Amino acid sequence: MISLDLVKELSIATPSKILLLVMDGLGGLPDPQTGRTELETAHTPNLDRLAAESICGLAEPVALGISPGSGPGHLALFGYDPIKSLVGRGILSALGVNFPLERDDVAARINFATVDEQGRVVDRRAGRIPTELNRKLVEELRQGIKVPGVQVFLETEAGHRAMVVFRGEGLSDKLTDTDPQATGVPALPATPITAEADRTAYIVNELIRQAAQVLRDKHPANYILLRGFAKHPDLPTMPEIYRLKPAAIAAYPMYRGLGRLVGMEVLPTGSTLAEEVATLKQHWANHDFFFLHYKPTDTNGEDGNFAGKVAAIQEVDRLLPDILALKPDVIAVTGDHSTPALLKAHSWHPVPFALRSAYVIPDQVDRYSERACGRGTLGVFPSQAAMRLMMANALKLQKYGA
Amino acid sequence: MISLDLVKELSIATPSKILLLVMDGLGGLPDPQTGRTELETAHTPNLDRLAAESICGLAEPVALGISPGSGPGHLALFGYDPIKSLVGRGILSALGVNFPLERDDVAARINFATVDEQGRVVDRRAGRIPTELNRKLVEELRQGIKVPGVQVFLETEAGHRAMVVFRGEGLSDKLTDTDPQATGVPALPATPITAEADRTAYIVNELIRQAAQVLRDKHPANYILLRGFAKHPDLPTMPEIYRLKPAAIAAYPMYRGLGRLVGMEVLPTGSTLAEEVATLKQHWANHDFFFLHYKPTDTNGEDGNFAGKVAAIQEVDRLLPDILALKPDVIAVTGDHSTPALLKAHSWHPVPFALRSAYVIPDQVDRYSERACGRGTLGVFPSQAAMRLMMANALKLQKYGA
Repeated sequence: MISLDLVKELSIATPSKILLLVMDGLGGLPDPQTGRTELETAHTPNLDRLAAESICGLAEPVALGISPGSGPGHLALFGYDPIKSLVGRGILSALGVNFPLERDDVAARINFATVDEQGRVVDRRAGRIPTELNRKLVEELRQGIKVPGVQVFLETEAGHRAMVVFRGEGLSDKLTDTDPQATGVPALPATPITAEADRTAYIVNELIRQAAQVLRDKHPANYILLRGFAKHPDLPTMPEIYRLKPAAIAAYPMYRGLGRLVGMEVLPTGSTLAEEVATLKQHWANHDFFFLHYKPTDTNGEDGNFAGKVAAIQEVDRLLPDILALKPDVIAVTGDHSTPALLKAHSWHPVPFALRSAYVIPDQVDRYSERACGRGTLGVFPSQAAMRLMMANALKLQKYGA
Repeated sequence: MISLDLVKELSIATPSKILLLVMDGLGGLPDPQTGRTELETAHTPNLDRLAAESICGLAEPVALGISPGSGPGHLALFGYDPIKSLVGRGILSALGVNFPLERDDVAARINFATVDEQGRVVDRRAGRIPTELNRKLVEELRQGIKVPGVQVFLETEAGHRAMVVFRGEGLSDKLTDTDPQATGVPALPATPITAEADRTAYIVNELIRQAAQVLRDKHPANYILLRGFAKHPDLPTMPEIYRLKPAAIAAYPMYRGLGRLVGMEVLPTGSTLAEEVATLKQHWANHDFFFLHYKPTDTNGEDGNFAGKVAAIQEVDRLLPDILALKPDVIAVTGDHSTPALLKAHSWHPVPFALRSAYVIPDQVDRYSERACGRGTLGVFPSQAAMRLMMANALKLQKYGA
């Protein structure tokens, strides 16, 4: 694999503009009734036309058979080795709410959850409580919790999700999750993986104990589950590597966090794709790389809502002409991973990918779908190579070697 | 490449069942008369239907241009790095006959061979003597050979093949083969590759000298050739890595040995595919992974018997419905390497691969052959990734990263 150091040596700044449109969880599986995937079911004349003018393939985020989380899926698209650059969920959560992390902070994702009288988890998402209730509960937790010897910061993310940051001497992120990833069983204690994490485990479990007290009559949000304990990784940024001035447009906090992690400027935007596209237009002159993130494809996939995912894809198709009207020199349309409605989860299937520039040889793909892109010139290729392709097509990569 | 440590972290035990059907030496080359390979010549309606319901590709056991032995070919299919996990032929032979190897034993494969009066090898396989004669000769060798300072164990494998294990202080496996891999030339002496193997080389050559005495009037089996000197490797087992309860069904000893090497339970079976399939049915409830090995495709390829290989493929096709009737959640049909009848030897050509589960997007391949599978979504992909694909499709691999 080509190292980022080499890419950095070859990268040059130019005025050309790259747009990376990520439909989260884009890839799907055939509906057993029709034999057609979500993309194959959707009516997508604009995406199909784009595919016909592009080189196409299937982007493999991590490796054949591996179902990536959002972190590895995006980091691969940004050109990072998704194995070497693993970023904990907690850090992604903290970045997503713009929390000013310090070097040795330990962050974790919180899920508000429902437990029964016996302490068994009955809903790992507390009925997906609204964000407003989440904010009230986080404020009550801030008031009601006091863990000696450590600063605890709590912030609402969205829905049932929040983040916690622990700050103090000698904290470790070598802890197991407390989310049992199943219902009908009790939450797990945070358990140290190495001895240096003993004290942190004690602190975390004390926080959870106190939180359960504060939340005891707040059904359905009467408990918290913590996962993804992590410290800040030390990644080279996209401006450093690619000499880009990149911007992230994402309605959903975690993806703003991912952008910030790699040195993107995070542009304030609304919660709909139309608002995201408006943000794109507004800032078009100021950046040479835009990461535009679209969440509903993944949300509907996770919910097993095949028709919802089809509709989400069609929404992107409707707004694509507005995006193309900006005349990006390079546009790549793909996903960070697949989330088939059939599986209601991230999956291992490689993701449709189409890249258009003035310098591609369009392959004979006339449909933007898993099977059609699979016949594209790129075949199944590592997502990690996508940034190099975008940079090359933007004429931002110099020749390698004499 | 994804490490086995990572795969181990992601693997979970579930009730779903995986069947890996390996047709040894499956891939072929076109008959110069017809332009069709063995697979393209065979009438295989059941394999073709399976391919149409599968994702397909060409599995590359080691690397483009490398012709693998049976060890690397199979270890890659089991998910091991075939370069890092090289297992000597001698160890495979010993495992195949269920020999109780100890830690520092040195094992080698023996071929009974024919030499002329001048000591030149005229048949490296002694006319493929029957196994029964092999047993008699091995017994005579046991009686007639006495090498001071070392224990020597001899066991029949099958046909002209046997194994030898040397046990004693300070033995080394850093020795060259004595099989000249050609006829009309004398056998080679075992030669130490490093000085620490000097004594072992002396012992081996003394064994060969005494064996030639014992066998001097046993034409055509009047000599022995030794190759693949090896000690036991230390591989993590499939139960450890994948949390599977795997079983091997193989008529031929070496493949049982390969299964045992990676922690499979070796099921007693007969010598025909029908008997192997009966064994599969009988034990279907007790395991969640089955390695079913079929040898005649390779044997016919090695013999240059194009029609015989076609018939062998058709035999698999005939019994495939019985196998599918067990309703494996995942079935993968492939080979460990190619053995084109045209070459009469293992070759470097990647091997047809088809994988069916409820979670594949079937590609537009409607024939199970080299060319048809080459148009599949997987393209040419590393055999080493096949286990991850099987595990993912059996929903036995958790998500990687947050």
